[in-house]
Amino acid sequence: MKALIISADNFEDTELLVPYYRLKEEGIDVDIASMKAGSIRGKHGYEVIARKALSDVDPEDYAILILPGGKAPGAVRRNEHALSIAKRFFQKKKPVAAICHGPQTLISAGLLAGRRATSYKSVAGEMKDAGVLYEDKEVVVDGNLITSRQPDDLPAFMREIMKKIKS
Amino acid sequence: MKALIISADNFEDTELLVPYYRLKEEGIDVDIASMKAGSIRGKHGYEVIARKALSDVDPEDYAILILPGGKAPGAVRRNEHALSIAKRFFQKKKPVAAICHGPQTLISAGLLAGRRATSYKSVAGEMKDAGVLYEDKEVVVDGNLITSRQPDDLPAFMREIMKKIKS
Repeated sequence: MKALIISADNFEDTELLVPYYRLKEEGIDVDIASMKAGSIRGKHGYEVIARKALSDVDPEDYAILILPGGKAPGAVRRNEHALSIAKRFFQKKKPVAAICHGPQTLISAGLLAGRRATSYKSVAGEMKDAGVLYEDKEVVVDGNLITSRQPDDLPAFMREIMKKIKS
Repeated sequence: MKALIISADNFEDTELLVPYYRLKEEGIDVDIASMKAGSIRGKHGYEVIARKALSDVDPEDYAILILPGGKAPGAVRRNEHALSIAKRFFQKKKPVAAICHGPQTLISAGLLAGRRATSYKSVAGEMKDAGVLYEDKEVVVDGNLITSRQPDDLPAFMREIMKKIKS
């Protein structure tokens, strides 16, 4: 099983690193993808290597997509490859987990209308405008979609991700 | 079950936060203890609340002790309460997991002579001088003692911690 994390510079460090390490703990191979392959840097200064450019990602290779927050989604959501990858996961009903500003990419892909979801509080207005049935909870699971609000929610976020992966 | 993390300012952020969130994912209550109760700040700027002063910790309340790295252990190792807490875990053969500079506290407590262990590479000389059978591996498990070298080792470190907790 392989997992895909899509992010960019100024990611929220724990929201990328906690899922990354947790999936590896489980023996799952994780690829990070960004606008181009190479190093990306979090808001708190951690650097990780994006092994893949978004244009080189084949969504069929991955069982789950994870979208961390921070300022990265503001850039990711403008990348057409990122949007088509997210759409492909939804079409196949494969798990997509987004936290904090991560759901912005799914808004831009037009995937959230009528879905129950949460996000960082500053994104709540935009979520509702996009037709989301917004819930202010540590984690919301609606079918293939798992969303959380902020770093403190990571235990609940990861608990639901691991459940989904193992089911 | 409760877990205890001992740290201080300038902790290595991921080495504290990844175990903290991982244990909470598992439904385990985690207390952070430091020289005094209140906020402590990592090298990368993350803040966490130490709910306990070290002088107020009763080691009997906890099933596992975790010692993250960074610059924090340089201060923690000079605190007599931290050393006596660590000794108590060893006497009771309860799991103690230390990463990076974390094992320095165990050296100061005189607990590592003759034990197989690892640490951040810059601590290797001090480990060997203290009688450690040093191994340059992502994780070393010797009885109750689990040690790792650096943030990249966190998946293996957490895998062994979770195995120990569940056994």
